[in-house]
Amino acid sequence: MVKARKQVVLNHFKGVPKREDFKLVEEELPPLKDGEILVKAEWISVDPYQRAYNTQIGVPYDQFGFQVGKVEDSKNDDYPIGTKVVTHKGWKDYFITTPAVTTNMTDIIYKLPDLQGLSESLGVGAVGMPGATAYFGFLEICKPKAGETVVVSGAAGAVGSLVGQIAKIKGCKVIGFAGSDDKVQWLEKELGFDKAINYKTADVLKELQEAAPKGVDCYFDNVGGELSSVIISQINLFGRVSVCGSISSYNDDVNKLPKATIIQPSLVFKQLKVEGFLVSRWTERWPEAFKQLIEWIKVGQLKAREHITEGYDHVFDAFIGMLAGENLGKAVVKV
Amino acid sequence: MVKARKQVVLNHFKGVPKREDFKLVEEELPPLKDGEILVKAEWISVDPYQRAYNTQIGVPYDQFGFQVGKVEDSKNDDYPIGTKVVTHKGWKDYFITTPAVTTNMTDIIYKLPDLQGLSESLGVGAVGMPGATAYFGFLEICKPKAGETVVVSGAAGAVGSLVGQIAKIKGCKVIGFAGSDDKVQWLEKELGFDKAINYKTADVLKELQEAAPKGVDCYFDNVGGELSSVIISQINLFGRVSVCGSISSYNDDVNKLPKATIIQPSLVFKQLKVEGFLVSRWTERWPEAFKQLIEWIKVGQLKAREHITEGYDHVFDAFIGMLAGENLGKAVVKV
Repeated sequence: MVKARKQVVLNHFKGVPKREDFKLVEEELPPLKDGEILVKAEWISVDPYQRAYNTQIGVPYDQFGFQVGKVEDSKNDDYPIGTKVVTHKGWKDYFITTPAVTTNMTDIIYKLPDLQGLSESLGVGAVGMPGATAYFGFLEICKPKAGETVVVSGAAGAVGSLVGQIAKIKGCKVIGFAGSDDKVQWLEKELGFDKAINYKTADVLKELQEAAPKGVDCYFDNVGGELSSVIISQINLFGRVSVCGSISSYNDDVNKLPKATIIQPSLVFKQLKVEGFLVSRWTERWPEAFKQLIEWIKVGQLKAREHITEGYDHVFDAFIGMLAGENLGKAVVKV
Repeated sequence: MVKARKQVVLNHFKGVPKREDFKLVEEELPPLKDGEILVKAEWISVDPYQRAYNTQIGVPYDQFGFQVGKVEDSKNDDYPIGTKVVTHKGWKDYFITTPAVTTNMTDIIYKLPDLQGLSESLGVGAVGMPGATAYFGFLEICKPKAGETVVVSGAAGAVGSLVGQIAKIKGCKVIGFAGSDDKVQWLEKELGFDKAINYKTADVLKELQEAAPKGVDCYFDNVGGELSSVIISQINLFGRVSVCGSISSYNDDVNKLPKATIIQPSLVFKQLKVEGFLVSRWTERWPEAFKQLIEWIKVGQLKAREHITEGYDHVFDAFIGMLAGENLGKAVVKV
């Protein structure tokens, strides 16, 4: 018998999620049936969409999210003991599942790609959902061309930090917005951004105009809100905006979202294209992204920094820290 | 010698354009040179973009805009006396020009299409720039499918009234937003909209949800602002938004645009595509739209109502009236 723990979300969050919105549930797992596997979590991911979706679904629910695990017991020949798997089973330390081929996020399971010696934690980061998000969300929607100017907001986050580096690989000029001077330093000194701006302290419009004298061609938006309105006002004719998230509003009441300067005049005069996306749109193509991302990391063109919290007991803290912007790069919990 | 009149715009408008922002200039036109034609305006158009562009260009400038005119004298064999032409020469009663093949809006000139007995005023309306705007802006960007629900704002205007009718022709359910009960009546009783809503008096969200129980698939946006934020919040997965204008903000200070509820959360969760456009993008294809629009009007599938002001002296009043929403359908001045 295996004793398993999971985090159940009891409430629709009001503002910043609170510890009492979660309940730790322990249960004894039953013996495996044919086709089932027992998975032990090794790396658990905390991501902004775990906040955003809370208000979109009914409560209570088992906290969802990506994790890398190891098959500890198996009655499924395709997943023998020792197999490393990526699932969307969330904040569970042990669980039983029946692997199926599906692109439905709830039940998705796939074998961890061959990471060629890189940390397996990347399976929930640069070579996982956030990696695919950066890769497809930027390349497919922004369709960047060499020489163009790309702006990324939430640039020091799991997705944004990859988008900026991919843009550099593609020959673009890259400007990132982040929320601390440490992040700005990291983006400019370590990741090779042409310019990074602390949106909390800068005169955003002025610094953006100085950094992008020829205007902006592509904008990868993780944050929404007024910052996005300012950036969109600086986009050139036929510019493209990929909207990945709007973390600036995630702690707001979903029925009373904030207001920001309207973007329609820019959309019309500059004939801009703005598209929101969920990375599940490309689930079948994720392996294509993973192959390329691993290659870029191996040759040193892409840095996949992680912000690691140790211990299953601290997954809630890791989540709150990530929402507060404490992480440089991907926030992940080592179980 | 011909005495010609034109309206020169002296200032960047502050709020509603004022009569003193314009200056009537009279001048004697010189004799024609080789290749030139003398045109007498017959129908002069007033349109929302004449307000919007004012802040984008330097002053003073000759007021631009479409007009239908007649060649009164000619030293150009391609444009003999009596030829009807459409130009972008604006609020001039007589002018001299050298016809050239160009898609540049300032110098555009083309022969009035064969309107098969319909009023030649349609050359600046349903079979002119506004017609092409409705046709391409809706069909190319919204890509509507039969059975889908389409929302149009500014629905009683020159473009909006055509978009709604084209959507009906394409088998869509059509909901229009307009600013008076008269307009609502006209849209529902005369133009066949499934539902029209007076956004000034209605509980917009509630009435929209009732009218569109299956949600919205396409939104053709003429107005921007909070109304658009509400409509966008009701759009279904993979919905499309065509942004044609944002007349709700045209009288605002361009450096201090209004705020409205952010749309990014809807863009992400519903994976929406929002695109702004200028109809000049499709100038070479306008004849394709005109052919279809004439056909629809001739068989009675499309009603091209006009709001006609008489006399060159009243073009300013027609313009202000149109900006205030006094027109049902296309606002045009009979010279």
